[in-house]
Amino acid sequence: MSVEIRIFGLEGIPEIESGDDLATRLVDAAERLGGLEVGDVVVVAQKVVSKAEGRIVRLADIVPSPQAIELAADRDPRHVQVILDETARIVRARPPLLISETRHGFVCASAGVDASNAKGAGTLILLPLDPDESAAAIRESLHERTGVEVGVVVSDSFGRAWRRGTTGVALGVAGVTAVLDLNGRRDEAGYELHGTEIAIADELAAAAELVLGKLERVPAAVIRGVAAAGDGSGRELVIPAERDLFR
Amino acid sequence: MSVEIRIFGLEGIPEIESGDDLATRLVDAAERLGGLEVGDVVVVAQKVVSKAEGRIVRLADIVPSPQAIELAADRDPRHVQVILDETARIVRARPPLLISETRHGFVCASAGVDASNAKGAGTLILLPLDPDESAAAIRESLHERTGVEVGVVVSDSFGRAWRRGTTGVALGVAGVTAVLDLNGRRDEAGYELHGTEIAIADELAAAAELVLGKLERVPAAVIRGVAAAGDGSGRELVIPAERDLFR
Repeated sequence: MSVEIRIFGLEGIPEIESGDDLATRLVDAAERLGGLEVGDVVVVAQKVVSKAEGRIVRLADIVPSPQAIELAADRDPRHVQVILDETARIVRARPPLLISETRHGFVCASAGVDASNAKGAGTLILLPLDPDESAAAIRESLHERTGVEVGVVVSDSFGRAWRRGTTGVALGVAGVTAVLDLNGRRDEAGYELHGTEIAIADELAAAAELVLGKLERVPAAVIRGVAAAGDGSGRELVIPAERDLFR
Repeated sequence: MSVEIRIFGLEGIPEIESGDDLATRLVDAAERLGGLEVGDVVVVAQKVVSKAEGRIVRLADIVPSPQAIELAADRDPRHVQVILDETARIVRARPPLLISETRHGFVCASAGVDASNAKGAGTLILLPLDPDESAAAIRESLHERTGVEVGVVVSDSFGRAWRRGTTGVALGVAGVTAVLDLNGRRDEAGYELHGTEIAIADELAAAAELVLGKLERVPAAVIRGVAAAGDGSGRELVIPAERDLFR
């Protein structure tokens, strides 16, 4: 028997607005593809989760601080102020580029604050306050609506140190293993596998991003065939500052 | 029409040894699943590529330097010597952990030197000398044997700054886009997408790792349904040291 994984993009989801019932939209889209199955992992782009949760600010409501004006370069200083408001610590600043540590502990460009795709000009989208809670709420709603236990990953696309380009990462996780720990297990040749922790939730997010369109409206994907059920969290994927060799 | 990606693990591949014809083994395994198709991306674990290329050293042949002995902690200093031989620059040292920049520019633990799965005790596996060339050679061999144009990614699993666990990354690429550049393209709301470079080859490697077994013998995967054909390279995925905020 062959190992096979399938990844479906969930299309035809209308633009999500604050207060929308995202889980129902996901279920509707999944129904058009035959419905969800036990063990599926539903990966949802952070942007639509944040929109549904109303994590949106209007630039018109923002007054920039002197620090925001200084860091703005040719960017709107109000935009930079919103990034600073979401930043626990500035990791690197090369204006207008800002790499922030967010309150969740994520290290990413612009503290995850995003302008593109926001409905209407002059609005910015913030990361969810608690992405694990967001994932858990979506998971519970999907279960209520379908009776099926699935895993949920709330994903975003982050840059990395040393490597070019962004890849999908898991911000929030529910019903899925986040880190698969192979420590102490042995490979076929009998070697103990040391230090082998696989960030499986990040790999699920990266795989899903192959179908999540930046330009087309595909804000979620279903991954089928991965035995990834578990009780991981997005928090686990963050190296605590005191153990991190790179903060 | 729905976006769908399928990922198959290539199973039943015998243990690869130095000089083995890896492409033929991949073709045989793919034939058992119905064969390769135009546009498929074949992701091959670095370890089997390195084995086929004879990138193996025997610890018995190594004499450790004083630096290797100092950095070894409770590890075999000959093992550390092999890592140092593969290291262009030590990025972080917390013995026995060594984060190296390799001659290719990759930043990773132990310069990518791996003990597990090596045939026989006392041998270590090194990264390919030129993973892009490795990928190109496999791609050409697959084409010769099947008449089908596929993409090839030689993958490994690297740790990251700030985030726990490893994820699949592309070391070598042939016939595949490495970095998908959305700069200047507009999303549905009419926003120009700035700074949006997606490391699609790394996402393919991460997706494949969901079926590449660390414990079972699945050293390669076929990804079908991604429009990723292109002329990218693994080199492109490395941020040049002088432009890197994190070296």
